[in-house]
Amino acid sequence: MRKECAKPLAVRGLMIGGKRPLVCLPLVAATEDDLVRAARKCLALMPDLLEWRVDWFAAFADARKVMAALARLRAEVDDLPLIFTCRDEKEGGARPITFDQRFSLMVSALASGMCDLLDVELAAGEQTIAALAAVAQATSTRLIISCHDFTATPDAATIVSWLRRARDLGGDVAKAAVTPQQPEDILTLLSATCKARQELEIPLITMAMGRDGRISRLAGGLFGSDVTFAAGVGASAPGQIRIGPLREAMRLLYPQTRKTKTR
Amino acid sequence: MRKECAKPLAVRGLMIGGKRPLVCLPLVAATEDDLVRAARKCLALMPDLLEWRVDWFAAFADARKVMAALARLRAEVDDLPLIFTCRDEKEGGARPITFDQRFSLMVSALASGMCDLLDVELAAGEQTIAALAAVAQATSTRLIISCHDFTATPDAATIVSWLRRARDLGGDVAKAAVTPQQPEDILTLLSATCKARQELEIPLITMAMGRDGRISRLAGGLFGSDVTFAAGVGASAPGQIRIGPLREAMRLLYPQTRKTKTR
Repeated sequence: MRKECAKPLAVRGLMIGGKRPLVCLPLVAATEDDLVRAARKCLALMPDLLEWRVDWFAAFADARKVMAALARLRAEVDDLPLIFTCRDEKEGGARPITFDQRFSLMVSALASGMCDLLDVELAAGEQTIAALAAVAQATSTRLIISCHDFTATPDAATIVSWLRRARDLGGDVAKAAVTPQQPEDILTLLSATCKARQELEIPLITMAMGRDGRISRLAGGLFGSDVTFAAGVGASAPGQIRIGPLREAMRLLYPQTRKTKTR
Repeated sequence: MRKECAKPLAVRGLMIGGKRPLVCLPLVAATEDDLVRAARKCLALMPDLLEWRVDWFAAFADARKVMAALARLRAEVDDLPLIFTCRDEKEGGARPITFDQRFSLMVSALASGMCDLLDVELAAGEQTIAALAAVAQATSTRLIISCHDFTATPDAATIVSWLRRARDLGGDVAKAAVTPQQPEDILTLLSATCKARQELEIPLITMAMGRDGRISRLAGGLFGSDVTFAAGVGASAPGQIRIGPLREAMRLLYPQTRKTKTR
């Protein structure tokens, strides 16, 4: 019954948008050593993907240090698909980073070819996204184009319009995250996910954030969300559930869910 | 964030419609001895309520045997709230039982004062329900009025109308169960539950049945469903999840969920 994607995306042999919703763990370390340690611990939890949230990295302003850390991380995670994300503070980022710094880091990451996917916000604007898309194409990196609302949940049509615009701007994956203020908001998010799945062919990632939205991280896969973010070593957004209990609950809904060894 | 009930129902000290969605285990035994054994095993799983599904009882046609079994069951479960249900075959019952037999069993159960709640289908009709309500009142037994669709999911307005009618006919609890054919149907059921919660003051029980509807058994409590049916010793309807894993998953969504000792 899970709504599969019309055109799943293969990344290092992993199908994003296939039969099984995937679990991604964020890496939120402040130093390179902590990053590598967190990656090792997360790998033991058998995620489907890892996301490096570079906005948590203390030396984010030193592009050489960021690239050196990315190189060690890439070596550490071997063939596991890796998302590179430098989140804007307005959309949940850990600290203020100038637009130029973020843009420069994203271009460097793409040019390095060391990440498989790069997440950029819709709010970055058409020109910035087009520039990143050009670099991404040259290195066969995929773009996730995302939009976050950390205070409320817009109506379903607005959420679908975010996802549609993400696709239109060349996103290989479209992502939307909202904040529910009442139970109906969760249904709005899930309903928008259903509608977007019918209209768009690319993989989608949607969630209602915060404790109140936890159900969406578990059930979103039924309605068309292809990746859920869980807590491994630290969480990167409010409401993320630890991967062990999340996967156990997911196994009730999706028989194909992988087991997590440790809990 | 869970939508609490405006007028929770207290049954033997248990609040139906309070902060915490409750877990009920069905008893589906064919003989009195099996019934008592199943009750013991289920009690060890710490449900909030038990439901005896009398339509599974082989000697259903012998009212004395049914009442004797009910008496032993009541003694066995002590002070745990007990639902007496003789389900019509058309609404998921285990075997064909004539209307007269069912009516007679329900009246006897009510008159005995040995069950706390009795479930009767909306389809039994206004007169039958009024007659049962009169007997129920005399013995302080509460009525659950239920409606099931084992093939499809009607629109939200229809589901709300079932629940409204259940309330109008004197139901202390209104119950609706549907069968989803697509993911949107689950959202329809949950949305109807939200709407009914806003309009009606009594406790509600709603679910989307079958494997595809499992998420509703887990998440319904967020949207206004006050009881979820789980599998303990046997299941009574398609899609019921074992109480152990169900409760573990519920604890992710409702911090107040009780722990189940055994799994």
